Amino acid sequence: MYDGIVQELIDELGRLPGIGPKSAQRIAFHILQTESFDVTRLSSVLIEVREKVKFCEICGNVSEEVTCGICRDPRRDPTFICVVEEAKDVVAIERTREFRGLYHVLGGAISPIDGIGPDDLRIRQLMTRLADGTVTEVIIATDPNLEGEATATYLSRLLKTLEIKVSRLASGLPVGGDLEYADEVTLGRAFEGRRTVN
Amino acid sequence: MYDGIVQELIDELGRLPGIGPKSAQRIAFHILQTESFDVTRLSSVLIEVREKVKFCEICGNVSEEVTCGICRDPRRDPTFICVVEEAKDVVAIERTREFRGLYHVLGGAISPIDGIGPDDLRIRQLMTRLADGTVTEVIIATDPNLEGEATATYLSRLLKTLEIKVSRLASGLPVGGDLEYADEVTLGRAFEGRRTVN
Repeated sequence: MYDGIVQELIDELGRLPGIGPKSAQRIAFHILQTESFDVTRLSSVLIEVREKVKFCEICGNVSEEVTCGICRDPRRDPTFICVVEEAKDVVAIERTREFRGLYHVLGGAISPIDGIGPDDLRIRQLMTRLADGTVTEVIIATDPNLEGEATATYLSRLLKTLEIKVSRLASGLPVGGDLEYADEVTLGRAFEGRRTVN
Repeated sequence: MYDGIVQELIDELGRLPGIGPKSAQRIAFHILQTESFDVTRLSSVLIEVREKVKFCEICGNVSEEVTCGICRDPRRDPTFICVVEEAKDVVAIERTREFRGLYHVLGGAISPIDGIGPDDLRIRQLMTRLADGTVTEVIIATDPNLEGEATATYLSRLLKTLEIKVSRLASGLPVGGDLEYADEVTLGRAFEGRRTVN
């Protein structure tokens, strides 16, 4: 145990995701030896980000304005909506440069264990966006895990009632991966989703 | 890439030790979704720790006062000084409850590659502490790696000139470890330092 305030900092850092007690200690000691100036900057960016950053009223993405840069961009195709769990998934997909439509961030995935049901996600807002008939395809891009699959199944059933095409991102072998190291579920999916090449 | 301030926070977090870009992103999103109240607390503890925490004038350990709690404690045995690289090593040794003497924090280890020589460490201050003849044994507890060993060798040569016993922490197999997984240097040291048991 450390003297008062140092232990307090270690405790605070330890509350951040992915930071165990050892990392918290390492970071705390790093901060003790860092220029006051740099610590002040980190401290004020923390406050600023919390004050400035809001969530886009339309899609739920992070944004410094009422609506996010993607929703405001007139070059984006409004007939496609890609549904993701978190704002960081938007960034991941944007990096691929494959998708030029709009997004809808659910704010999580259905998880009975964590007590998260459909009403805790931004599904109602999605239905409202789909109501005017602009959107022709909804691409469900939830995580390929239990919660993500449950959410995708729930959504695809819900959207069946509308005249909208619903698709799901392909599962299969990761590019650059090694077939022998693929788990059986992934390999099974890769077979299921195989494509004719000649 | 994210909008302005979010990316700035990710960059700032990415400068902390052991935090890669992925962790920085995860922490940043965690902070976006954390109560403002908690973020304010983390932010102010950062500033406070940097303002309040100093290094003990005697031993170099972290301290909120001019001298640290250990140096001020009259129950500690002033005839033993344990020399460590960093303040966090003090905490690690204190946890063992094996040592009741005083400490001396060098502030690093000799590392020619990083341009750290004996003059960059608190070795002069150590010699001053040893001058009055109170200390009878110096226990060198630098890390069991290249830099730590170099520092230990340097110190033990330097201290040979004084009438003081100098010792080094034992190297050997880690307790609870598995012999077959021990590297050859550790195993070699374990043989070298073997003890008669009957």
